[in-house]
Amino acid sequence: MLINCVAYHDGQKLADIPVEDISDYILRPDCFVWVALREAEPAELSVMQEEFGLHELAVEDARRGHQRPKIEEYGDSLFVVVKTVELKDDELLVGEVDIFVGNNYVLSARNNCSQGFLGVRARAEHEPHLLRQGPAFVLYALMDAVVDRYFPVVDALEGELEQIEERIFIHGSQRDNIERLYALKRKVMTLRHAVAPLLDAVGKLHGGRVPALCLDTQEYFRDVHDHLHRINGTIDAIRDTISTAIQVNLSMVAIDESEVNKRLAAWAAIFAICTAFAGVWGMNFKFMPELEWHYGYPMAVAVMVSVCCYLFYRFKRSGWL
Amino acid sequence: MLINCVAYHDGQKLADIPVEDISDYILRPDCFVWVALREAEPAELSVMQEEFGLHELAVEDARRGHQRPKIEEYGDSLFVVVKTVELKDDELLVGEVDIFVGNNYVLSARNNCSQGFLGVRARAEHEPHLLRQGPAFVLYALMDAVVDRYFPVVDALEGELEQIEERIFIHGSQRDNIERLYALKRKVMTLRHAVAPLLDAVGKLHGGRVPALCLDTQEYFRDVHDHLHRINGTIDAIRDTISTAIQVNLSMVAIDESEVNKRLAAWAAIFAICTAFAGVWGMNFKFMPELEWHYGYPMAVAVMVSVCCYLFYRFKRSGWL
Amino acid sequence: MLINCVAYHDGQKLADIPVEDISDYILRPDCFVWVALREAEPAELSVMQEEFGLHELAVEDARRGHQRPKIEEYGDSLFVVVKTVELKDDELLVGEVDIFVGNNYVLSARNNCSQGFLGVRARAEHEPHLLRQGPAFVLYALMDAVVDRYFPVVDALEGELEQIEERIFIHGSQRDNIERLYALKRKVMTLRHAVAPLLDAVGKLHGGRVPALCLDTQEYFRDVHDHLHRINGTIDAIRDTISTAIQVNLSMVAIDESEVNKRLAAWAAIFAICTAFAGVWGMNFKFMPELEWHYGYPMAVAVMVSVCCYLFYRFKRSGWL
Amino acid sequence: MLINCVAYHDGQKLADIPVEDISDYILRPDCFVWVALREAEPAELSVMQEEFGLHELAVEDARRGHQRPKIEEYGDSLFVVVKTVELKDDELLVGEVDIFVGNNYVLSARNNCSQGFLGVRARAEHEPHLLRQGPAFVLYALMDAVVDRYFPVVDALEGELEQIEERIFIHGSQRDNIERLYALKRKVMTLRHAVAPLLDAVGKLHGGRVPALCLDTQEYFRDVHDHLHRINGTIDAIRDTISTAIQVNLSMVAIDESEVNKRLAAWAAIFAICTAFAGVWGMNFKFMPELEWHYGYPMAVAVMVSVCCYLFYRFKRSGWL
Amino acid sequence: MLINCVAYHDGQKLADIPVEDISDYILRPDCFVWVALREAEPAELSVMQEEFGLHELAVEDARRGHQRPKIEEYGDSLFVVVKTVELKDDELLVGEVDIFVGNNYVLSARNNCSQGFLGVRARAEHEPHLLRQGPAFVLYALMDAVVDRYFPVVDALEGELEQIEERIFIHGSQRDNIERLYALKRKVMTLRHAVAPLLDAVGKLHGGRVPALCLDTQEYFRDVHDHLHRINGTIDAIRDTISTAIQVNLSMVAIDESEVNKRLAAWAAIFAICTAFAGVWGMNFKFMPELEWHYGYPMAVAVMVSVCCYLFYRFKRSGWL
Repeated sequence: MLINCVAYHDGQKLADIPVEDISDYILRPDCFVWVALREAEPAELSVMQEEFGLHELAVEDARRGHQRPKIEEYGDSLFVVVKTVELKDDELLVGEVDIFVGNNYVLSARNNCSQGFLGVRARAEHEPHLLRQGPAFVLYALMDAVVDRYFPVVDALEGELEQIEERIFIHGSQRDNIERLYALKRKVMTLRHAVAPLLDAVGKLHGGRVPALCLDTQEYFRDVHDHLHRINGTIDAIRDTISTAIQVNLSMVAIDESEVNKRLAAWAAIFAICTAFAGVWGMNFKFMPELEWHYGYPMAVAVMVSVCCYLFYRFKRSGWL
Repeated sequence: MLINCVAYHDGQKLADIPVEDISDYILRPDCFVWVALREAEPAELSVMQEEFGLHELAVEDARRGHQRPKIEEYGDSLFVVVKTVELKDDELLVGEVDIFVGNNYVLSARNNCSQGFLGVRARAEHEPHLLRQGPAFVLYALMDAVVDRYFPVVDALEGELEQIEERIFIHGSQRDNIERLYALKRKVMTLRHAVAPLLDAVGKLHGGRVPALCLDTQEYFRDVHDHLHRINGTIDAIRDTISTAIQVNLSMVAIDESEVNKRLAAWAAIFAICTAFAGVWGMNFKFMPELEWHYGYPMAVAVMVSVCCYLFYRFKRSGWL
Repeated sequence: MLINCVAYHDGQKLADIPVEDISDYILRPDCFVWVALREAEPAELSVMQEEFGLHELAVEDARRGHQRPKIEEYGDSLFVVVKTVELKDDELLVGEVDIFVGNNYVLSARNNCSQGFLGVRARAEHEPHLLRQGPAFVLYALMDAVVDRYFPVVDALEGELEQIEERIFIHGSQRDNIERLYALKRKVMTLRHAVAPLLDAVGKLHGGRVPALCLDTQEYFRDVHDHLHRINGTIDAIRDTISTAIQVNLSMVAIDESEVNKRLAAWAAIFAICTAFAGVWGMNFKFMPELEWHYGYPMAVAVMVSVCCYLFYRFKRSGWL
Repeated sequence: MLINCVAYHDGQKLADIPVEDISDYILRPDCFVWVALREAEPAELSVMQEEFGLHELAVEDARRGHQRPKIEEYGDSLFVVVKTVELKDDELLVGEVDIFVGNNYVLSARNNCSQGFLGVRARAEHEPHLLRQGPAFVLYALMDAVVDRYFPVVDALEGELEQIEERIFIHGSQRDNIERLYALKRKVMTLRHAVAPLLDAVGKLHGGRVPALCLDTQEYFRDVHDHLHRINGTIDAIRDTISTAIQVNLSMVAIDESEVNKRLAAWAAIFAICTAFAGVWGMNFKFMPELEWHYGYPMAVAVMVSVCCYLFYRFKRSGWL
Repeated sequence: MLINCVAYHDGQKLADIPVEDISDYILRPDCFVWVALREAEPAELSVMQEEFGLHELAVEDARRGHQRPKIEEYGDSLFVVVKTVELKDDELLVGEVDIFVGNNYVLSARNNCSQGFLGVRARAEHEPHLLRQGPAFVLYALMDAVVDRYFPVVDALEGELEQIEERIFIHGSQRDNIERLYALKRKVMTLRHAVAPLLDAVGKLHGGRVPALCLDTQEYFRDVHDHLHRINGTIDAIRDTISTAIQVNLSMVAIDESEVNKRLAAWAAIFAICTAFAGVWGMNFKFMPELEWHYGYPMAVAVMVSVCCYLFYRFKRSGWL
């Protein structure tokens, strides 16, 4: 579905143009066309391929979707795939934005992502001195928008980890913790799949050999790279912490169980001794003098109670009860 | 066993040719020969070696089989080994395709793989403008076909993992889970052995120093490389998840056991207290006044029942029962 | 908040100058300006940006804060972010120092860090032969001060680890150990986030391609790099030890539990045998000759006691008690 | 101990020559000398050093033995250390072959390895067209022979792993499994110590900067490298699997124990309830009406049996028995 | 404390010279001075700094001590820090040797290491043809001596590991094993801190870009590098084995506990059944015909004994006893 198709000249919006005129506008000097698509049909992509002269393999990738984030050079133009990650009801939704960039055009096609990039366009149109830098700046603005949207997701995941950590040493919450840690791990992996390959790819847009298109905007892409680096560092820290937390959780289960076992052992011993005494005095021997005593029974109960109390005291002292 | 032996001129099929004529055809300009073998006998390979002038070491490798995926340069020609992986009845079958590529020939020899590459040839013959690019394009088409067949396998493994994950927090399924996780791990390792070395090898067919043969088809091989990258990323994610799942499974076993132990401890305590009381009133002391009471027995039972109920309530509240 | 704003000429302090004059002073040859800010307001940063002609993206980063440690080149000037780490009441406080360095200026802005850098300025002013080297030396002095403050933190963490290690094989301290190990791990991760990225960044200030600004002070930055290397090595060792200690702790829990279980098993067996004997002699059969014996009861008690003693001896010998 | 000392000319054997003549023969053009030693005495090595003009440090290494696999250049000559690994009675025997290679000589000295290299020499003498390539080819032939002997060892280790894997989910074999896994791990580490450093070293004999000696035989060394790569890949896979198997084994122990515990809990509950009932009816209260009933006893037994049966049924259904 | 201060000319000892004359001797051609210090005072270092013209930062490092092993270039001269590791009463003592090397001097300062380097000097003076190579050779000799002293330490650690491994599958030694494994791990980490950074540093003294000073002695440093490589390889293997051994130890604890539990369960079941029977016949019902039988009692005992024997046999057969 076409969202906008606008021609710009020297950083200023010229006009909304019909799709058929694209191929004319991109021939004018100092002019570039910025087209935005959403959930593009194969047919729309074919039209765009013709108008912009896109490479078959790139269009094929956009058509099939489910690419990994990457930046590929086709001659002078770039084909960029970035993943959007949104948080919705405790679930991560992953979308995809395919961006084709040439010397005088930008074509972005987003799929499965609820938020659009109209804000990006609006901001860019208000800063003609920046937009004048052309398609590379638009590419930067789009990538920056996508990457900025990772931050709240990372924050949410960090917050979730902290919530779990607060409960990690609480008795009886281990089952819950381990389920939440596992779910968190999966979310982190999802985010990592969006970030890690992009980090590698953006690294090639500044520093060493840079595509001609991005030569003048290297500092901007270094900024994006730096943001991705920060997110990636946080992701790695979360993964590391999750893995330690799972280990620690297992230890806590073992410690709790060991404490329950000790307590069980202690009580069992106390009752077993009572039962043994009662059993002895319940034997049917004819000549058991204490059975005949007048105060035999109270005495027996006293013996049992005092033995129990003594054991209770011993176990208490050694920390078993 | 020979499957086809066809000569092409400028992207068009010339004719099925007998094996003996190969050495003539490969001398003609703009002409190349594409031969496909299946479960090739040593003798057949020797004939091919003579006709195409293949390198001794490469033929030796093809004869012995069980190579790791690799791409080797012998002068101007390439020797490529790729592994096919097929899913059959919950088992992974691994086959091998050895491909010899020169300036004007392609020789592919497949072993142990049920699906052939006739479809590849058919598609190529319908796109003469692509086939015109010669043996390098054929090599791409073959590798692309092999790599495309990895995707359903990866999907099946992911599906299996998801099935296990759904049951990972269910009581009593741990034994089954661990067996399935282990089996899955082995399958993933098998697939990884096919993919990882190939990823490294294909990386050398685009970008930096590229064999002369593949100079004009770099973008195609980058595409294959990208697919392999995606598969490899998924494999790594599955491995990571399996290893976390095994850890989590161990935790779940410990948690379940700890819960069973608590419940056992609780019931044991309840019965032990009953038995202790009964033991006391079963003692044979002569003077035990309550034994003489008319309502002694119901009272005793009442005491026992109320103690049990009290304990039951306590344990219930503290989550042990 | 402005702390100082001083102009230096040939290593000697010229004068405290008002902010508005900065742009004049930095045009004089052999002269440089060193400004220090604390918890800078956006407005202050804007003034500085104008006076020094700082790059938009760098100022933006300083304004937002929470950057990862990094060293970025903007043309001839550098933008450096370092993290300060301070120990306060068993907690690690992380602050940030943003440093802008040009050919004739240094601007440092610190946030959230209790200790200032007045000492650094004082020492530098007492060594004019070093300060003569200009802004690069000031950058070194600031970074050196920050890095030197990591050492007491690392020492504190090492000390904490040693304390835990002393108690790791002590019965009954496992729960405490695991909590402390986990807390230590988090602190180590915090420190690592400050050190590791800086290590990479400083590595680019000596050796290979070095920013023109730092060419003559490479040996100083190598020294900082070396300190960071040492700290990083210690951090890695602590992490490695923590992870082993968690594993060992789990083993100790299991061993302790296993010993408690053995002891429980032994006592349970001893009492169970007594109870079984007592139960037998408590049966109501009419013809049980031993019940009639005059010394039946003492004999019975003797049998029970000797069986118990025998078992006790056996268990003692096999290490269960 | 000297095994052979033979001079070759243009790929053909000239003669067995006495050690003293070596220094003469190696001056002749197109001629090279191939000497094989076994368990060489220091004195023998000194003679060789003189005849061939070997470097002091290399001879020192050979004299001391216990080197790690490596390939060192000394001027135009190479010093190669490879480890032989043989399987004998379930044990791995590690030997060492030191090879000195110059423009016109090869000196191999093997230690602690039962199999010799006479076969290598015989095969080489039957292929004069290959042997004509000189010492580099001999070096290849020797290394290839050593590396080929790794394959049966790797196969044996894989076989052992498979045997263990078959028993990994069988009740009661965990102790045995863990011992065997540990022993296997040690063997794998031994093999890895022979393979991994050699892999790195051989990688320098083809591709990038190659010692002049090996320039024309690069493809052969790539073949050796490829074999080592395959072995190394298998070793890594075995290690990975062992480590997973140890984890899984621990899980299986925990699961088995948890099942035994459940069963124990179930039976204990059943007997405890019987005992509690019996205890109640064994009390000595005067007025316990059911004791007087004519069918009291069978009724009591019936109650006990039916409670037990009910519990048994319950436990069976919930999978505890 | 000054140990020696000797001038050498063309590999021959000239004379012991007073410290004040150093600056004269190092100006003479073909002459170099070799000074050895022990536990040097700051004042001594200052004198040396003046005489040799050492770099401020290097002297500062030597003064403070506790550096990590490293090799730093200061113009034409090198500053080398190596760690000595000595075994004393089961403890590892770590010392430090700081070596300053210039075109015509070597200054070594050792701290905290009991063994000196007089032997190195003596050996060097007996080999004037080697000593003629100047300070670089002395540096090699010193480093070689330090590295050679690592070998007995590594051997001791390996021996300790083997001792532990022999006891790893023995019942009841797990607690001891885990303590020893942990202690061993700490020692290995200590040694690793001395070896690993040195390995990296020495790697820069041969092969690629080498400091001018060491150009002619590259083969010697490659030898040292190779020794370090071997030690490092062994350290890595020990670490890997320790970590597996800790895992295996945990498994053994679990297996032992599980066996104890089974045995306990079995005996508990046997006694519980006896007690249940005795309880039944201890009930006070009026009409229990078997109680009246003349052989009721022996029969009852016979029933109990045979049930016990049957259970014993069953448990024995299923491996629980």
